[in-house]
Amino acid sequence: MIRNGDGHGIGAARLAGLLGDVRAGRGPAYRTLAAAVRVLVDDGRLPSGTRLPAERALAAELALSRVTVTHAYRDLRSAGWADARQGSGTWVRLPDGPLRPDGAWVPAPVRGGVIDLTHAAPPAPQAMSALLRRAMERLDAELAGHGYGPDGLPALRERVAARFTARGLPTDPDQIVVTSGALHAIGTALGELAGPGDRVLVENPTYPAVLDLIDDVRALPVPVALDREPVQTALPRAARQTAARVAYLMADFQNPTGVLLDDDARARLMLRLARQGVVAIVDETFVDLDLRDGGIAAPTAPGPRPCAAYAPRDDDVVTVGGISKIAWGGLRLGWMRTAREPAARMRRRLARAQISPPILEQLIGVEVLDALDDLRAERIGPLRAQRDRLVAEVGAEFPDWRVQVPDGGLMLWYDLRTEMSTALSAVAPRHGLSLAPGPRFGPGRAFEDRLRLPFTHPEPVLAEAVRRLRRAVDDVGAGPVPEARADLVV
Amino acid sequence: MIRNGDGHGIGAARLAGLLGDVRAGRGPAYRTLAAAVRVLVDDGRLPSGTRLPAERALAAELALSRVTVTHAYRDLRSAGWADARQGSGTWVRLPDGPLRPDGAWVPAPVRGGVIDLTHAAPPAPQAMSALLRRAMERLDAELAGHGYGPDGLPALRERVAARFTARGLPTDPDQIVVTSGALHAIGTALGELAGPGDRVLVENPTYPAVLDLIDDVRALPVPVALDREPVQTALPRAARQTAARVAYLMADFQNPTGVLLDDDARARLMLRLARQGVVAIVDETFVDLDLRDGGIAAPTAPGPRPCAAYAPRDDDVVTVGGISKIAWGGLRLGWMRTAREPAARMRRRLARAQISPPILEQLIGVEVLDALDDLRAERIGPLRAQRDRLVAEVGAEFPDWRVQVPDGGLMLWYDLRTEMSTALSAVAPRHGLSLAPGPRFGPGRAFEDRLRLPFTHPEPVLAEAVRRLRRAVDDVGAGPVPEARADLVV
Repeated sequence: MIRNGDGHGIGAARLAGLLGDVRAGRGPAYRTLAAAVRVLVDDGRLPSGTRLPAERALAAELALSRVTVTHAYRDLRSAGWADARQGSGTWVRLPDGPLRPDGAWVPAPVRGGVIDLTHAAPPAPQAMSALLRRAMERLDAELAGHGYGPDGLPALRERVAARFTARGLPTDPDQIVVTSGALHAIGTALGELAGPGDRVLVENPTYPAVLDLIDDVRALPVPVALDREPVQTALPRAARQTAARVAYLMADFQNPTGVLLDDDARARLMLRLARQGVVAIVDETFVDLDLRDGGIAAPTAPGPRPCAAYAPRDDDVVTVGGISKIAWGGLRLGWMRTAREPAARMRRRLARAQISPPILEQLIGVEVLDALDDLRAERIGPLRAQRDRLVAEVGAEFPDWRVQVPDGGLMLWYDLRTEMSTALSAVAPRHGLSLAPGPRFGPGRAFEDRLRLPFTHPEPVLAEAVRRLRRAVDDVGAGPVPEARADLVV
Repeated sequence: MIRNGDGHGIGAARLAGLLGDVRAGRGPAYRTLAAAVRVLVDDGRLPSGTRLPAERALAAELALSRVTVTHAYRDLRSAGWADARQGSGTWVRLPDGPLRPDGAWVPAPVRGGVIDLTHAAPPAPQAMSALLRRAMERLDAELAGHGYGPDGLPALRERVAARFTARGLPTDPDQIVVTSGALHAIGTALGELAGPGDRVLVENPTYPAVLDLIDDVRALPVPVALDREPVQTALPRAARQTAARVAYLMADFQNPTGVLLDDDARARLMLRLARQGVVAIVDETFVDLDLRDGGIAAPTAPGPRPCAAYAPRDDDVVTVGGISKIAWGGLRLGWMRTAREPAARMRRRLARAQISPPILEQLIGVEVLDALDDLRAERIGPLRAQRDRLVAEVGAEFPDWRVQVPDGGLMLWYDLRTEMSTALSAVAPRHGLSLAPGPRFGPGRAFEDRLRLPFTHPEPVLAEAVRRLRRAVDDVGAGPVPEARADLVV
């Protein structure tokens, strides 16, 4: 097993870059520094087992006194986030004992009054309860068999295929692979398509969990900036320059920017990528969360066709979807669509690893897809109101922040106009708030001036979250010092 | 995507070794050859994309005419199991289109009237239905949250820990990692402990799915024969000889041999492996299926303590378990137990890949563990009767076959006294039977004279299975030709 001392060290300059400006925090600098290191360990940017730089070197990089760094390291050790060996240095680690409620990037339950703004995941709609019971009744018919079904429940694959077909992309059930959620589908596709040293194009910013998955197959993410030219030219250009063979992208309310590509952009993008020999992994996680006019009882004109409809061949694209956002995050069920032969191969790969998703979960998937219109109708109204409320609250509190309000999805991507996102995330738990730092949404050090805010909570919770955000921002020194801190939750 | 021609070729001698004696089959030799190749492709020993040897070379190795091989290759192509390119050869592939009901090693549902003897998986006990409904009621309380719980449901980890503690292995819930089944736990542990080129000791024979998982992390399985010396000396000796750092083993009714290690053997094995610096992955999949006297209403003396109870330190062992065998294979829920720090690391690894098993599945796990005595009581009696019935039926039909009748588990490991297992599996579907060939249970070419027969079906089905087995054996030429073949199912 890996023990302390096995890991690599990190240089003082590199760590300072990851930490951002820790002098900006309110309260003792050593505590802000320790909190910022914990965030990095917790979200994986500083892997457990990494040796920290010498205190003197880090102090110089951060323009802090050496005593401050010494105190911060001692603080980390006493709280279980680091170990030291006499004369050989200090290693960060994940703490033993009770699990941490604070700051984890991988989703953690809401605990103890902390408002969780790291996850874009609403509670289950009312309609779920009846739907779950219908799935349970269907399960009774399955209990007489051995229960193994590595190819995925035929009824589920049929419904997923029918839905693609209805959206303008003719699909056979044999093209569908059932997975334990969309994230699992992306990881499986990456495992099939990319290996050590391969380059994988990603939009920058992108969905951070995918950066971890790219790292897991030892491939290299190639971040493609989206603010200078449109994705349909930027991605193919990057493919040409880097000889990448795989791209990961979201065309429907991109995470975190909320951008929706129109049909024309999709057609150009898919043709150009295919011409470069790039297989696109297109993540449709938010496709059902179109919040535009008309409401859902009277659905608006259908959205753009799936990207794969514009690709020359079925195996140019792996289209990924799931039910977590439209139904509930506690369900772990997703799928892939590609050509028949790679689909069969990926079904087999999944069967080797874990046989299949649970049958009950797949039966719930069938019910969710049958009830899609109802679920959407229940979701859309509140989400739209919450989005608008969050925009209004943030606008009133932080008039200089900028945002492009998206037509769908679950989140707003704010430009804070000042670099403080990691520090803000580090102090936020003191104010009863959990935030995902902007740099987490890209593989580099960009986005210190960005913050993703999901609008998945009820309006009063969002209003309270913005009040806490105000206090957190003040705490990192960007505004006046708050007078009352009675609501501190750590 | 991988296309034909990307894969490697297989030499004629190597393929002939994998095929066994295909001349023994009844009916045209080309058909037997094609069926045997399909079995190899289907169970992954001949990966999709592998180029087949030149017809002339294979014909020479198999002592068949070249025309026979030509016909077999044509048969494979026309059935979608191979492609050819003019002048460059023939590549095997998984067929497109409807999924194959026949011969898949990865579990496939029972279809048509085929009796499935490839899986050791009984139907769900009656008690499951009420238990599932209780879990559903508990779920209602969770629906208000976002549903993500990457660390595993605390109530489930507490119960798993309590059960280890009750069996003589004090365990804290923080030492438990919740997974999507025992297989998923083994794969995760291997991913953490072994990398490319590392040697992993396995008992020979062993659970075949684990060989695939070892291959997936590009490690090398080191098969350790169990028929010459006991496992507690054989595994440590192999560790010394190969510098292996990981071993995979089953101490409770081993798959496929059914062997149960006593306390003394466990103590010696664990101490010796720890001294060699080997981490043991101990698979407890069958631990609850002790079929010995006394019945379950009056449980017998408790079985041996878990292996980990004998290891010097908690991180010397990863203990793996799950609910598929005692409850139902359609449930995909398992766990690992190890030291706190590696457990935290593995929870994080799993969260990266798929966040968590579904909450509902974890709630079902809680109910299963609370109802363990009831489930065991319902399972044990029928299993014992089925085991004895299968032994009697096989004994009457094949008096020269040998078996060590196990005290628990779900299967019998027969010595057929003649090398025909792959050929037998190839012809079995013609007789309405699906079999796993003996060589699948080891990484080499051994066990052509072995057959694993699970006793998970009701007694009349087992009796009928043995009648069909008779006809299949006759079909590979080991006995007289059957007169009637009206029950053919392909």
